Amino acid sequence: MSIKPFPELSHDQEKELVTNLSQWSLGNGLVMYPPNFEGFQANVAPITLFPTPIPKESFHRAVKVQKLFNELYINVITKDVKWFSSILEDLSKHDPEFTGRLFEVYQKSSKIQPLSLGLFRSDYMIHQDTNEIKQIEFNTVSVSFGGLSSKIGQLHQYLNGTGQYDSKYNYKYYDDEDEIPVSTSASDLAQGLADGNFYYHNGEPKTSSVVLFIVQPNERNSFDQRHVEYALFKEHGIKSVRFTLEEVEEHVTVNQNRLYIKSTMDEVSVVYYRSGYAPSDYDVNPEKTWAARLLLEDTLAIKCPSVLTQLSGTKKVQQLLTKKEVISKFLSNSSDQELNEVLSTFVAIYSLDDSNEGDTGRKLAFEEPEKFVLKPQREGGGNNVYKENIPSFLEKLDKQEWGAYILMELINPPTHKNKIIRNNEVFHEDIISELGVFGTTVFNEKTGEILTNKNAGWLLRSKFSNSNEGGVAAGFGCVDNIYLY
Amino acid sequence: MSIKPFPELSHDQEKELVTNLSQWSLGNGLVMYPPNFEGFQANVAPITLFPTPIPKESFHRAVKVQKLFNELYINVITKDVKWFSSILEDLSKHDPEFTGRLFEVYQKSSKIQPLSLGLFRSDYMIHQDTNEIKQIEFNTVSVSFGGLSSKIGQLHQYLNGTGQYDSKYNYKYYDDEDEIPVSTSASDLAQGLADGNFYYHNGEPKTSSVVLFIVQPNERNSFDQRHVEYALFKEHGIKSVRFTLEEVEEHVTVNQNRLYIKSTMDEVSVVYYRSGYAPSDYDVNPEKTWAARLLLEDTLAIKCPSVLTQLSGTKKVQQLLTKKEVISKFLSNSSDQELNEVLSTFVAIYSLDDSNEGDTGRKLAFEEPEKFVLKPQREGGGNNVYKENIPSFLEKLDKQEWGAYILMELINPPTHKNKIIRNNEVFHEDIISELGVFGTTVFNEKTGEILTNKNAGWLLRSKFSNSNEGGVAAGFGCVDNIYLY
Repeated sequence: MSIKPFPELSHDQEKELVTNLSQWSLGNGLVMYPPNFEGFQANVAPITLFPTPIPKESFHRAVKVQKLFNELYINVITKDVKWFSSILEDLSKHDPEFTGRLFEVYQKSSKIQPLSLGLFRSDYMIHQDTNEIKQIEFNTVSVSFGGLSSKIGQLHQYLNGTGQYDSKYNYKYYDDEDEIPVSTSASDLAQGLADGNFYYHNGEPKTSSVVLFIVQPNERNSFDQRHVEYALFKEHGIKSVRFTLEEVEEHVTVNQNRLYIKSTMDEVSVVYYRSGYAPSDYDVNPEKTWAARLLLEDTLAIKCPSVLTQLSGTKKVQQLLTKKEVISKFLSNSSDQELNEVLSTFVAIYSLDDSNEGDTGRKLAFEEPEKFVLKPQREGGGNNVYKENIPSFLEKLDKQEWGAYILMELINPPTHKNKIIRNNEVFHEDIISELGVFGTTVFNEKTGEILTNKNAGWLLRSKFSNSNEGGVAAGFGCVDNIYLY
Repeated sequence: MSIKPFPELSHDQEKELVTNLSQWSLGNGLVMYPPNFEGFQANVAPITLFPTPIPKESFHRAVKVQKLFNELYINVITKDVKWFSSILEDLSKHDPEFTGRLFEVYQKSSKIQPLSLGLFRSDYMIHQDTNEIKQIEFNTVSVSFGGLSSKIGQLHQYLNGTGQYDSKYNYKYYDDEDEIPVSTSASDLAQGLADGNFYYHNGEPKTSSVVLFIVQPNERNSFDQRHVEYALFKEHGIKSVRFTLEEVEEHVTVNQNRLYIKSTMDEVSVVYYRSGYAPSDYDVNPEKTWAARLLLEDTLAIKCPSVLTQLSGTKKVQQLLTKKEVISKFLSNSSDQELNEVLSTFVAIYSLDDSNEGDTGRKLAFEEPEKFVLKPQREGGGNNVYKENIPSFLEKLDKQEWGAYILMELINPPTHKNKIIRNNEVFHEDIISELGVFGTTVFNEKTGEILTNKNAGWLLRSKFSNSNEGGVAAGFGCVDNIYLY
């Protein structure tokens, strides 16, 4: 199908659009705290003026494959514990300070609560020409922007519905439902948390317990989290409490393995991490924050995610899963067609260690670097290195350090000249977009039983395409939404 | 019934409450632009931490009498045109620059659209001891805070529902529905505008036309208006357009008496004034703004309000209506009980002119000033003068200027030690509150026929009780909500 061009508005029309968009955003919580913020003041979140074109077939493929991905990762965690443990042990050696400490928490913990809650997000870029979706990463911890994604969908529908994308007649430029649907992620992620609460209470929808949000200090993206919290309370009657990792010890207490908020003696059914995913989350006070992580892990509260589920999102696992024989093992009940739906989303990923496969990776890194991006395996382990910069970067390192990186085939996404608004400034440049699909699941880490497995909306994030960095580039990102064509 | 005291929270609990209240407000549009604002940044609106106690009987009396007040003012406008005109003529002589020019617009206009839309608000204070409601004023133009009033009701219910008013157990401190109901004013005022649109189209719910909001430049309270606009679009599918009085001429066009937006040729069904009510709204460019007012008045679009309806809200009318023989004439179909329900809300109001009644007023002003407040009749005509300051104030004026003031019996409202939050600061002082009840009506200014007459929610506004100014005092106000006891 052909793509409608972006709306072409006059200078005055665009000015009015920006005013209306800004006031809608401020009036409906599509906001973020600015840097060095005060608690009583918020800014319009960085967003696009228009929805960005995404092929309908690509979008539906990504949505359709989500539950298979949820299942795949559950099975990675539960079906071959020896295999998974050996990977984590190996990673721990290379990254003792983060992966190592997480794995240590897992090993030390009592594993008293076998149920685990996953709020996942699988991120894709779309290959130009073929419209194939190609996975960037599968996120198993602290997936964000589900709240603001619902909001920007509503904003774009409002602007479209009130005729503000039409330069002439005030008509609708897009078809609301067919072309610019609204992501239900805020509600769906809240439903995921409610599912965790439900199974904590052995299948009863009790509202006597609370969900504990573990947050970062001075979080600028609070409102994204709050929209999930508000939906959880409004739609399920379940309250939430928020602490940083550093505050945990002072504010909770454990009795017969059950976790309670000290001040109110509210029982915690679900611990929901919106922090704790990066090494920097533990840096301020490592002793206290790691102790807090273990304390929480060691209770009957259902963790979202458990350390084990969090660790399944490591790049090493992503790399290993690109092999058909590996995913066939973990999706043994799936049809060939389903396996292919999963496999077709993978790009080639090579290790650079001294294995046989590492040989191939090292060769490609020097012979065809223009096809690849080099990524550190460690979370927070540094920046990606693109294309021609790869050989010289590797040469500067000790060879034994190469194993800390993976080489990933570059995706060549289409660019679109949408407009990004950041504060009062409108940027009109080529952007590239990343489509994230949310999924939620409650499963048993011991038995592998899957209690729920659901789709949970989507996110489109866009950023400037910066030619220096070769397509999959840097530049600040913004919240976007899909225009399906 | 006994009043529950305000929640007593510890320092830490209050700090957490302020964080949660601020983020809820920023996440849900309970916001205002700060002074000298930038369009992309908003602040939490000045609000109370807790709902303020209001006697249930007083509240219900105010709600019940609203439709009678709507009817009373409609009849003032339509039942005795000669009487009303003579009052306006007289006022015009004393205040040629504002009342005079408004009246001139009325006289010059073609009166081609007999239908008139009123979004009214009747403001009361409650007499301590007796719990009687006493009317401060009846507003017939640009009544504000209907949008934010709905929001603060939701906020207080959220804080209460999540147990944050309970210092111990996280329980609900108030009963949501019975004690702290949410005002439906945002929706109800939108319904009023939709009613205007409906009758513009001869009783068809068309969405092909738009509502034109006439706004002030650099309006800080935009979000209050926007919530009504969003409800109008969401609940009725009716779009809105916004211009200042100064922008009107450039952006509209009239064809066969119908009003259109030039850029889109959208027909305007209702002109909704959120500006034009004070002399300062015309000051920047009197020629252009007054011409705009006449231009709009002269079209088939239904005005909310027409100049005539706006002028019915003058203090002189309020003063005359305090007499039983006057309101009996205008509410001739009402029962004695109904008349008393209206009459009981009035305090004594005296003119100070050289009429017989003026004699009484002048006498009281000097002999019992402690019972009164002196108010200028003119809109924007200066500040109120309280109690003992009245005699010396009058002595400084020429006697013929006294006619420009009215003397109004003071109301003695109870004070409550609620907390007001403004930016990050929490003020803990005695406050007094003003209860506003919204009403909407579509009526025929020529025939007096009433097409709709509805209640439309409420507003509680509070401000510091400042002993220097005697009870009904100055100090900045804030948006509050009711706790019915």
